[in-house]
Amino acid sequence: MELYFLGTGSGVPSKERNVSSLVLRLIEETGKSWMFDCGEGTQHQILDSPVKARRIEKVFITHLHGDHIYGLPGFLSSRSFQGGSEPLTVYGPEGLQEFVESALRISGTHLTYDLHFRTIEEGFREENEQFEISAHLLEHGLPSYGFFIKEKPKPGALQKEKLEAMGIRPGPVYQTIKNQETTILENGTVVQRSDVLSAPKPGRSVAILGDTRFRERHMEWIKGADVLIHEGTFEGKESRMAYDYYHSTVVQAAETAAQSGVDALYINHLSSRYQREDIVRLLTEAREVFPDTFIVHDHFHTSVVRKERQ
Amino acid sequence: MELYFLGTGSGVPSKERNVSSLVLRLIEETGKSWMFDCGEGTQHQILDSPVKARRIEKVFITHLHGDHIYGLPGFLSSRSFQGGSEPLTVYGPEGLQEFVESALRISGTHLTYDLHFRTIEEGFREENEQFEISAHLLEHGLPSYGFFIKEKPKPGALQKEKLEAMGIRPGPVYQTIKNQETTILENGTVVQRSDVLSAPKPGRSVAILGDTRFRERHMEWIKGADVLIHEGTFEGKESRMAYDYYHSTVVQAAETAAQSGVDALYINHLSSRYQREDIVRLLTEAREVFPDTFIVHDHFHTSVVRKERQ
Ligand SMILES: [Zn+2]
Ligand SMILES: [Zn+2]
Repeated sequence: MELYFLGTGSGVPSKERNVSSLVLRLIEETGKSWMFDCGEGTQHQILDSPVKARRIEKVFITHLHGDHIYGLPGFLSSRSFQGGSEPLTVYGPEGLQEFVESALRISGTHLTYDLHFRTIEEGFREENEQFEISAHLLEHGLPSYGFFIKEKPKPGALQKEKLEAMGIRPGPVYQTIKNQETTILENGTVVQRSDVLSAPKPGRSVAILGDTRFRERHMEWIKGADVLIHEGTFEGKESRMAYDYYHSTVVQAAETAAQSGVDALYINHLSSRYQREDIVRLLTEAREVFPDTFIVHDHFHTSVVRKERQ
Repeated sequence: MELYFLGTGSGVPSKERNVSSLVLRLIEETGKSWMFDCGEGTQHQILDSPVKARRIEKVFITHLHGDHIYGLPGFLSSRSFQGGSEPLTVYGPEGLQEFVESALRISGTHLTYDLHFRTIEEGFREENEQFEISAHLLEHGLPSYGFFIKEKPKPGALQKEKLEAMGIRPGPVYQTIKNQETTILENGTVVQRSDVLSAPKPGRSVAILGDTRFRERHMEWIKGADVLIHEGTFEGKESRMAYDYYHSTVVQAAETAAQSGVDALYINHLSSRYQREDIVRLLTEAREVFPDTFIVHDHFHTSVVRKERQ
């Protein structure tokens, strides 16, 4: 489980930062990746990254502003051009499907794979065997969503020492014991699975927010995430401007992280007014509020580490 | 009059070449520029160029394939974001207006300038005081056009030696003589403007083609251009593939140049299958047919030189 930031700027691309896109790489877990937002030039950023378009099976769009969606028709076309054949699902607010379908239709683009759409709205929730994702309405100029991605816990491993201490020798019976709650052996011994399994491994969880104003109520559903990805368009003193433009400051992002009790905060969506040399200042003020803050740049990547939580 | 190539690849962006866009810079002549095609990432390429989005007053789209239009919504939005206030007109085949308007509407984008549309079809022609542009249907998978841009001739300059030899001293009368065909001076002298003007300066002309198969009939309207910009998606031996995919080879581009009698040929729209080291080979085979051939790369730029033609 890795986060790879393809674009960490806001509004318009700059030489330092492209517009929004990040990829949650689940290569180890599922062999696939999920993309969040797809601003113009995302496919160009992919060229310089380990991300493979054909491995992306889901694209989630937080909101419909151009800097979050204008790269989608090109990304989908290129995935096809490169021979992608696995189906792909695009998730986003009402209107996204119309945008994508009109771009593909007018440009005469025929994809080599099945493209599906699912509309995101408050209450959206989807799960498979390993992951669960839910969407939560934020506060922006138009409907913008945050996503909570939760890995399901992994069952514990059989503890061979315990089985052998019970006189049970390795063999197919081990799998039987693992598969059911209670196993009665041929000699009459009753084995409770819970007695011979190590503790289940807790799943990891990530909260990825779209553009938003700072709001206390967001912390309710962010709570419990290991990692928070939050926009920080402006520096701390610009909270008035952040409010007016429906954005957050880096300090507000840090407050959200601190009050939600996450382990780490990654701030993206920085205004192009901030140059490389300003970032240390922004980082310092955010870390005063929440020490485990990182302000990310294009191609920054990090693993989401599985850890034992109390 | 300068040509600036922002993207010279085809189909999908590669590390070497972005998808199609070029700018005809008329800064010296009018202070403005015209863009031809606007593939995804064109605004990113502009960041590394002397091109200014707000100076672009017209965008001509040769055809609706994604690699020629997917950068348009982002370019138009960023021109607005950067405070562009001068109106802009987008010219393109039927369907382009719907693509642009749907992208801007769905993303909630409000431009700071007036955006106009004009549909391109066979017979399209527009002119102003200095330039004339016409569109010509090519042969591609969907309607694709070539443009012929013609600078109008500049009237010659007054030859002061001749006027003084006629005993006419410098003064407001010089402007009067220049403004009308025949001037009768107070002393009764009749001055024919044509006798005292140097020869008019011929205008320059450029033919810019969209994606196309090689066709003899294109030479009819290309004839007389100083400079030809022609696609060369494939190398010479791939003429069968070029035909099948509605494209041209670099040798076919050179044949078109040779038979049209242009002064120089700039080949763009190269397939990403050709790497930097292949280009010399492609250039050599094109130059065997037409010596004044250039295969252009992103950020290549050249002046269109005014010259006396016989
Ligand atoms: Zn944004
Ligand atoms: Zn093309």
